[in-house]
Amino acid sequence: MAGYVLANASVATMTDGYGLEEDGALAVEDDLISWIGKRDELPHKYAKYRTENLEGRLITPALIDCHTHIVHGGDRAREFEMRLEGASYEAIARAGGGIVSTVSATREASEAALLDSALARVDHLIAEGVATIEIKSGYGLDIDTELRMLKTARAIAGMRDVRVRTSFLGAHAVPPEYKDRADAYIDEVCLPALEAAHAQGLADAVDGFCEGIAFSPDQIERVFKRARELGLPVKLHAEQLSDLGGAKLAARYGALSADHLEYLDAEGVAAMKAAGSVAVLLPGAFYTLREMQIPPIELFRDQGVGMAIATDCNPGSSPLTSLLLAMNMACTLFRMTPEEALAGATREAARALGLDDTGIIATGKKAELAIWDVAHPAELSYRIGYNPLYRRIVGDLS
Amino acid sequence: MAGYVLANASVATMTDGYGLEEDGALAVEDDLISWIGKRDELPHKYAKYRTENLEGRLITPALIDCHTHIVHGGDRAREFEMRLEGASYEAIARAGGGIVSTVSATREASEAALLDSALARVDHLIAEGVATIEIKSGYGLDIDTELRMLKTARAIAGMRDVRVRTSFLGAHAVPPEYKDRADAYIDEVCLPALEAAHAQGLADAVDGFCEGIAFSPDQIERVFKRARELGLPVKLHAEQLSDLGGAKLAARYGALSADHLEYLDAEGVAAMKAAGSVAVLLPGAFYTLREMQIPPIELFRDQGVGMAIATDCNPGSSPLTSLLLAMNMACTLFRMTPEEALAGATREAARALGLDDTGIIATGKKAELAIWDVAHPAELSYRIGYNPLYRRIVGDLS
Ligand SMILES: [Zn+2]
Ligand SMILES: [Zn+2]
Repeated sequence: MAGYVLANASVATMTDGYGLEEDGALAVEDDLISWIGKRDELPHKYAKYRTENLEGRLITPALIDCHTHIVHGGDRAREFEMRLEGASYEAIARAGGGIVSTVSATREASEAALLDSALARVDHLIAEGVATIEIKSGYGLDIDTELRMLKTARAIAGMRDVRVRTSFLGAHAVPPEYKDRADAYIDEVCLPALEAAHAQGLADAVDGFCEGIAFSPDQIERVFKRARELGLPVKLHAEQLSDLGGAKLAARYGALSADHLEYLDAEGVAAMKAAGSVAVLLPGAFYTLREMQIPPIELFRDQGVGMAIATDCNPGSSPLTSLLLAMNMACTLFRMTPEEALAGATREAARALGLDDTGIIATGKKAELAIWDVAHPAELSYRIGYNPLYRRIVGDLS
Repeated sequence: MAGYVLANASVATMTDGYGLEEDGALAVEDDLISWIGKRDELPHKYAKYRTENLEGRLITPALIDCHTHIVHGGDRAREFEMRLEGASYEAIARAGGGIVSTVSATREASEAALLDSALARVDHLIAEGVATIEIKSGYGLDIDTELRMLKTARAIAGMRDVRVRTSFLGAHAVPPEYKDRADAYIDEVCLPALEAAHAQGLADAVDGFCEGIAFSPDQIERVFKRARELGLPVKLHAEQLSDLGGAKLAARYGALSADHLEYLDAEGVAAMKAAGSVAVLLPGAFYTLREMQIPPIELFRDQGVGMAIATDCNPGSSPLTSLLLAMNMACTLFRMTPEEALAGATREAARALGLDDTGIIATGKKAELAIWDVAHPAELSYRIGYNPLYRRIVGDLS
């Protein structure tokens, strides 16, 4: 049979706030949501469908982690330890630490090894009801390894029941062999790698890191121009450590999102609003770096800029594999509401990826759902290190 | 067969620092560790035992969560949400929020209901390799409910393969019916409940909350005197929000531990050292309350006061059910080292509970072990929201 019904549930549709339907039911036909409403108003035509009684559980859209670096070689546990033992940044660099260590480990890793280590992390997200994961390149910084990272990301979608959206992030850092020659790196590696990734269908979007320790707005703009020529949407790591006007630049290119944004000013918020860019907030990095500057949540709220929440899963500044914990951190550290946090991991995360067939529960959307053992959606952000997932549904019921 | 061997593992014995034995093996006889050393030095007598090849995995002592309020009625998710929506404390209190709401929900809950909700949380701890959990009363605040909480805690040990150590915490808060009559509450409820709990074998230790919003040092001392008469060890929630000299008081009674300790001064640290009390640090509450004052880690380190780490799992200030996350928070927020964090969840946690048969891997200790899919013990604190447990062993191998 091509359809089924989930009955006796609370449904947080996330269409507008929680959009909570109590005593609700939901029908699925051909992997699409075909009806949603009060359980006692379920149309008769669904009577022939298999019906599951959810005994009052909560249904939400499946979660979406819209900013990860989940494919990478190695880990940075020893660097974490050395820093806490009092080692200087110089000593850590001498011991091979920092992003360079991840670049080396990623370059040395085969696609199979990258896939293996990423899957363990992906499985943690899936166990929390995540059905879509954005995955960036950016630890290769040479053409071959950038492409290998993106191929690994694509391979994940073949190994697990999860959608993967890739972002080409060649402009993540300047590799050691191009030290002080960032422009040459853009010309000789980043742009050719982007073209190759596009030609091979490996890039769904183009990302960059606009920061004093990474690339200037001018350098990022050269990447964005090429992205535009190739017809790829852009997004940007911007205003994480300082305000270089990255979000404004991204907005000029109609960016899907600008991400981090701790140091964004009111002008940047207005530019994002005008462009319809989503603010992707990454409290895991804020927490790990012990940042004190909170992103301009009030301005986003007042201006109606959508806020997404993601793990930023990466081996340095956010070795985080729990989107539920990112939601709790968004509330505890950024003072977002649980409703905003859940919208940030569903509806707004979908927007940040340019997806319009998921992220909310409405007729015609994909049946990508999470069912939770909680009485109220606020519990999802309230608990810390607790996973109340009852079941994830992606497409068919099995 | 009464014994088995775990071979081809790294063993973090935690006897002194990590006490790391690389290429190690470990033998267990009658649920006790009987040998530990290099795998190629395993005595011939163990050849007859079943041997499991751990393929280089890490063995640590099973984890110990030495401070929890894991038995309680209700949750405070809506209060969490109201606060983030901007509701005042007064509005939250009017809506029935705060500790009073947990007291009401706990009083209304049957032992079966308390057990059911606690087990879901306990299972999260067990899934992370926890084998011993301390559980406090303190949300009953009447004789019957205090006893019911402790009975529930004992029942958990019958339902799961986990050791439970109970602490009687009648002096947790003044219940509404004794408002402004804390001394009468101590006389009429707390001390009689303590005696009943002791008579029924329900209390392994006696705890209190010494704070402006709870009980004065004089009131706590009356409880401690009774504990001493009954032969029960004491511990204390002290110096969490202000310095009332609670840890010094606890030290005078030879306390197993003083807990929280953000506002502890050097004199208090010295008193704890002299008494051999463990400092139980609770970064989950620090994080949730957005506290800025860090406990005196440097002083504990310099003076050689043992530091334990626990979840403080409770529905208000720390709805945390991940001891691994508490370890990460201890590193990230308190700047403890991963080695200190792991010792804090094993060796020092055992000391904080007065247990000398667990918490380290040494001959004669119980075979309470955690086996991890990690290369180095620092990874346990480095990752956030990730559970690399391969298997927990409590007693026999099955
Ligand atoms: Zn990132
Ligand atoms: Zn406590």
